[in-house]
Amino acid sequence: MESEPTDLDWLDAAAALAGRGRPRSSPNPAVGCILVKDGVVVGRGWTQPGGRPHAEAQALGMAGPDARGAVAYVTLEPCAHRSDRGPSCADLLVEAAPARVVVAQTDPDPRTDGEGIERLKRAGITVDYCDSIAARRSLDGFLTLQRFNRPHVTLKLAMSLDGCIALPDGESQWITGEEARAHVHSRRAMADAILVGGGTWRKDLPRLTVRLPGLEERSPQRVVLTRGVPIDGVKIINTPAQICTLERTQYLYVEGGAQTGASFLAEDLVDRLEIYRAPIVIGKGMPSLGDIGLTDLAGAHGRWRLVERRQLGSDCYEAYERIRD
Amino acid sequence: MESEPTDLDWLDAAAALAGRGRPRSSPNPAVGCILVKDGVVVGRGWTQPGGRPHAEAQALGMAGPDARGAVAYVTLEPCAHRSDRGPSCADLLVEAAPARVVVAQTDPDPRTDGEGIERLKRAGITVDYCDSIAARRSLDGFLTLQRFNRPHVTLKLAMSLDGCIALPDGESQWITGEEARAHVHSRRAMADAILVGGGTWRKDLPRLTVRLPGLEERSPQRVVLTRGVPIDGVKIINTPAQICTLERTQYLYVEGGAQTGASFLAEDLVDRLEIYRAPIVIGKGMPSLGDIGLTDLAGAHGRWRLVERRQLGSDCYEAYERIRD
Ligand SMILES: NC(=O)c1ccc[n+]([C@@H]2O[C@H](COP(=O)([O-])OP(=O)(O)OC[C@H]3O[C@@H](n4cnc5c(N)ncnc54)[C@H](OP(=O)(O)O)[C@@H]3O)[C@@H](O)[C@H]2O)c1
Ligand SMILES: NC(=O)c1ccc[n+]([C@@H]2O[C@H](COP(=O)([O-])OP(=O)(O)OC[C@H]3O[C@@H](n4cnc5c(N)ncnc54)[C@H](OP(=O)(O)O)[C@@H]3O)[C@@H](O)[C@H]2O)c1
Repeated sequence: MESEPTDLDWLDAAAALAGRGRPRSSPNPAVGCILVKDGVVVGRGWTQPGGRPHAEAQALGMAGPDARGAVAYVTLEPCAHRSDRGPSCADLLVEAAPARVVVAQTDPDPRTDGEGIERLKRAGITVDYCDSIAARRSLDGFLTLQRFNRPHVTLKLAMSLDGCIALPDGESQWITGEEARAHVHSRRAMADAILVGGGTWRKDLPRLTVRLPGLEERSPQRVVLTRGVPIDGVKIINTPAQICTLERTQYLYVEGGAQTGASFLAEDLVDRLEIYRAPIVIGKGMPSLGDIGLTDLAGAHGRWRLVERRQLGSDCYEAYERIRD
Repeated sequence: MESEPTDLDWLDAAAALAGRGRPRSSPNPAVGCILVKDGVVVGRGWTQPGGRPHAEAQALGMAGPDARGAVAYVTLEPCAHRSDRGPSCADLLVEAAPARVVVAQTDPDPRTDGEGIERLKRAGITVDYCDSIAARRSLDGFLTLQRFNRPHVTLKLAMSLDGCIALPDGESQWITGEEARAHVHSRRAMADAILVGGGTWRKDLPRLTVRLPGLEERSPQRVVLTRGVPIDGVKIINTPAQICTLERTQYLYVEGGAQTGASFLAEDLVDRLEIYRAPIVIGKGMPSLGDIGLTDLAGAHGRWRLVERRQLGSDCYEAYERIRD
């Protein structure tokens, strides 16, 4: 016998929907919403490109009168502020009158910050919180911006078993196989901006585009970290800290090389590491990272948590999250 | 409903038994044998310390008259040569008269080399072959000696996510956690000899012993690769190729460091890589390997196959086998 989905199951599902909005929901968070009535989904939505309509508006529009008495699952507290582009989601929900709203994260935006939930409660709607890791992860970019005033940073490394990202002469095409490279393109499509160091820019002349059928339009803004001269069609930053100046960027994908990755790590600006490892041994090659300022081994421990491991052809993909707090 | 075990299932089980003989069966191969009658195990054995009794003799002794009409599963062709220490296993089997013998590997030893099987057939016993990867792997040391006239070599590397085996100053205690270190000790106990380079010998003063309760006696012969002067209580070799001079050694476990691992890889003397990876980032540290003589990336592919991956605490253990032929 299958058991009823729990609140957490529904929020995880809403988080998966939210993922469809990433990264095009920018500058708004990518939110997901599911409306459930008598165990049946009567509406669902996610933040649309450009940030509107919001997930709740989409889901309520789909549900129509069925929203009354339903349960609404939302990954983020409904917004409380009217804009030129429409009424607040809290007001829309009050009007639609679901019996209960289950929220995974409160919205630290000062225009909402608890007021969305208060408004629902005042209208007699039950509000419950439920912590969904998937929902939190789906809001990584938004929450990182709120907390650190900078984009969420993923550092990608493609390496051999012994941790080299290239031969001594810089040859790095190809360490990993086709599946891994296609996966990298799908990850690019999830970012607002993509960055390489000046060294990689000059050596590999990377296109940094999404070359997946149907997703070519999703190529993110290209950024180069360099102390050098401007480059046509590319945004330049001179220090890792300047990522806070990138506009409309919740997710930054850093593709190396070794010095650039190390520069971001040294300033503790990496939130997620994505490692592709090919079953090859290089020996004396280019190490995957330069100096990150580590002085003792004890200081290296307890900083990274494995969150995903997957085989991609003969390569292994792993994602690690920076443990904070 | 459970289905009957197949020949392969029984051989895999015999291979697991064979593992109990490793490495103390030396100089004989560690063989496993199971006798099955009417679906019930009536005898089992593995090569005993020092190489005798053989697995078949053990299993037949346990089965007694039940061996008649049974099926005998053996990981290696029964030996055909009498020795001072007893009759050949082929003769013992003929006398015990099982109905069928299933063999995983033929024995390339010139004293047997098909003659064991011929003798069974001449006595009217059915002989079947069945290729069991587990059985082949359990004979790695023996088969490598036969084929290459040298021990089977496992290279161990304990590294960070970015492939460092130490800080720049050589500090490497500890990269991995307790479970991984205990696992290393259990792997030491499976080797006849254990080797480090002169650099590691001088820097870490490693004891290279098995420090697991009950297995302290299993500490293997210690070997140092060095161009330098003799060391008390330790066997010295001056080149990797000299591993062929190690006596009674089917399994050699090489524990580094970077130069030593590279020296073995450069001469294609590594049969198995065992990698322990801790979820830490070191940055500018000691790369896990020195020069292995690789000149292009294409030449690095197709040489290693993942055969095991396992989580040990927060570390990841992986084993890769060299693909040959
Ligand atoms: N396998 C992989 O995943 C992968 C990925 C990328 C690259 N690679 C390989 O890596 C090699 C390049 O790596 P690399 O380490 O030499 O170069 P890199 O990191 O791509 O570029 C180094 C340059 O980045 C800029 N930079 C780095 N840190 C900085 C900081 N803190 N502030 C300001 N600017 C900074 C400087 O640019 P300017 O010199 O312009 O001032 C510096 O010279 C290539 O061989 C490439 O093929 C491999
Ligand atoms: N994390 C790990 O898994 C791990 C394991 C072991 C060591 N380590 C670390 O690795 C560091 C030591 O590594 P390393 O690369 O400097 O030293 P190493 O490989 O242990 O030793 C190098 C020495 O081995 C001998 N050698 C190497 N190749 C040879 C060849 N082809 N023929 C003859 N002799 C050869 C030479 O010894 P002589 O100089 O005596 O002639 C050479 O100087 C230490 O910091 C240690 O902590 C880490």
